[in-house]
Formats: sequence, C-alpha cells, structure tokens
Amino acid sequence: MANSGKVSGAVVRRLPGYYRYLCDLERDGLVRISSQELGSRMGLTASQIRQDINCFGGFGQQGYGYNVSELRKRIGEILGLDEQYSMVVVGAGNIGQGLAKYSGFRRQGFVVKAMFDRHPEHIGAQADDVAVLPVEELEEYVRENQIAIGVITTPAASAQQICDVLVKGGVRAIWNFASVDLNVPEGIALQNVHLSDTLMVLSYHMRNQRPKD
Amino acid sequence: MANSGKVSGAVVRRLPGYYRYLCDLERDGLVRISSQELGSRMGLTASQIRQDINCFGGFGQQGYGYNVSELRKRIGEILGLDEQYSMVVVGAGNIGQGLAKYSGFRRQGFVVKAMFDRHPEHIGAQADDVAVLPVEELEEYVRENQIAIGVITTPAASAQQICDVLVKGGVRAIWNFASVDLNVPEGIALQNVHLSDTLMVLSYHMRNQRPKD
Repeated sequence: MANSGKVSGAVVRRLPGYYRYLCDLERDGLVRISSQELGSRMGLTASQIRQDINCFGGFGQQGYGYNVSELRKRIGEILGLDEQYSMVVVGAGNIGQGLAKYSGFRRQGFVVKAMFDRHPEHIGAQADDVAVLPVEELEEYVRENQIAIGVITTPAASAQQICDVLVKGGVRAIWNFASVDLNVPEGIALQNVHLSDTLMVLSYHMRNQRPKD
Repeated sequence: MANSGKVSGAVVRRLPGYYRYLCDLERDGLVRISSQELGSRMGLTASQIRQDINCFGGFGQQGYGYNVSELRKRIGEILGLDEQYSMVVVGAGNIGQGLAKYSGFRRQGFVVKAMFDRHPEHIGAQADDVAVLPVEELEEYVRENQIAIGVITTPAASAQQICDVLVKGGVRAIWNFASVDLNVPEGIALQNVHLSDTLMVLSYHMRNQRPKD
C-alpha cells in the first residue's frame, strides 16, 4: 500500500481529474499511456504527471508508460471510490433538488438517502424517489442511517447551524453550497462549492477582457 | 481607475470571497474594518489582504482601515457586478433546471433567458418562467438575444460541440458543469465547475482521515 497520508492538497485536487481522464481512456479501449501523452491531454507536463503518480507508489516502468485500467482502478481506490457513501441534502430549494435528483453522483457511489427542509411547503414533496423530511429530524436521521456526507444548500444564514447538527449526528464530510465559509471540527472533511464565486470570476474576465468588436 | 489588467489569477479567485464578506459586513451595519479584522474573518493574513486590495489602487489609510461600503462597491465594479448578464442553460436535466430556477444568480445580475435541450421530452417544459427550446435554435438565439454567458450542463460527450456553438453565436463566457475540460478561443472566459471532482476530494479525505472510533 502506498503511503497516501502525506500527499499535498494540490495533488489531491488533481486526482479526480486523473480519474476522469483515465475513465475516458479506458472507455475508448486504450491499454497503455505514456506520461507525455496523458500530460498533453490534461494540460500538464510529463514530469508533473510522473511526480503526482509517484506519490502513490510505483506505477509504470520507465519507457513503458502506465497501464490505463490498473492506474484508473488504483486512483479510484485512493479516492475511496470503491466504497458507497450515503448523503443527505439539507435545503430542498432548486439547487438542492437538482443535486438530489442528479443520477451521476449515484453512479459514482454517492447516494442521496433523504432531503431536509425547514419550510412546510417543501416537506413531503418528492424529488424523484427522495423524501423531503422536516429539519427537526435531521440529527437523528443522520445517526440512525449512518449518513457519511451532509450536503448543505440552505441560505447562508442557517448553514453553520445545519453544519453543526450534521456533525453532531455523525457525518464524516460536509459538501457546502451555501454562500458562506463553514467551520468544521478536525477530522471532518469539508468542500465549499461557491457557485456564485465562479460566476463572478466570469464577469470579472468579461469586464477586463472584452472581445474585439 | 485602477489598472486591473495585470492582476494574478489567484487574486481574481479571491475577489468574490472579499465581495461576499463585505456584503455581509455592510448588511450588519459595519462602517469601517481593519485589514487585521477582515483577515481574521476570512482566514487570511492582514498583509495578504492589504496586498490583494492594493492591486486595485489606493483604498483605506494606514491605521484607519477600509470603508466597508466603498470597498464592497469598488470590488463589485472590478468584478463587473454593476452590469447585468444574460445567460442560456444548455442541458435541461436536473442540474440545469436547478441552476435555471435558482433565484440567487438573478439577484446578482445573472439572468437565465432560456434553456436548451436535445431531447423532445424536455422541450417546451418550463423551469419556472424559463422556456426550454430545441438545441438546433441555440446559435441563432444566442446571436439575436446577445447572450453573454453559456451554461453547459450536458453530458460530457456533447459539451465541446455545444461550447463551439455558443462561442459561434457570440457568448463572452462559458460556465461549464459537464464532466470534461473544454477548449475555448482566446478572449472567451471559461470556468469549469466539476461537481463530481469535489465529491471525490471528500471521499479521499474520508478514506485517508477516518475519525477515531
């Protein structure tokens, strides 16, 4: 087993990209790929690729490239994708419902078990097969169903409180879409997806780099 | 006017965070804030804050801190948020519909004008007030309605082709949610939001940093 405990955050953030590219290559029937070729597809240098992959132990032989299936499988294991994760989505608004219904996550092993909302008009509504439950039941539900990931799509003002309840219930990770930075105790994984932030980066570039007209 | 043309990508990616924090502070009625205080809220050092903000010209006076409203307004201008942007969403699946219906973007000046889809069963359906049109009409619609931003939520396999059509129609920016890295010509802004990638980073951390049990 490679020692993946010391891997830098930047390498970890690149791993899903490797996984995506390797899945595509495997689907296209490619058996081996060189670090040069993989790098040119991913917009990285061959040496960067070799360094990243070496973090996880010995893959490939100098001059022979990597076995695509083997490397895809091993990176999947490193990413923990050989396990299934149950999730709850808190906040049954449009973004929450979109995420809960999206089948792509389920295919990758991330399964939404229930949604929660504070507003009665949402409660009981079904986002496809996912029930919307009252937020008062959140902590108990998380504990009893051993939910691994709490997805937060509430307004910013209630996000930290919901996060605390999820952590108290026993989730191991928070996937936050609320427009606020959250605090979690050590040992709990956190990813913030600030959708509006990426839109603002787009408008920045439109303002500062207008196309010639 | 500050020369914001030479600002690094890292500073640009931090700007929406500044904007968010300053909006919250303004809402809470705070008039002035020091770089120390802003830094401690944002998890940055005071010197980092001063450096970032100095990229955009002279704000605040040594020892007096920043005027919250003024700085919020100026960063909003730098981000181009004093303008309204029209968007189309291509791909009327769950993620696409969630984004199209979400009112938060509209409040920030990003307005979805129409959705497009290839599949007849989605076409004509209404995501609230947004019509779903056939993808064959995309290029003409973008051109005639001077759409600024194309949002792509299609399967990975068709995303690059849709991107090319959007660019041909005249969009200035692409907001990509498809699970593939896209190529755009120079002068077109691009932000990839690979939702699955952030989920995989969560599962990596769950695999590699299990809570003590």
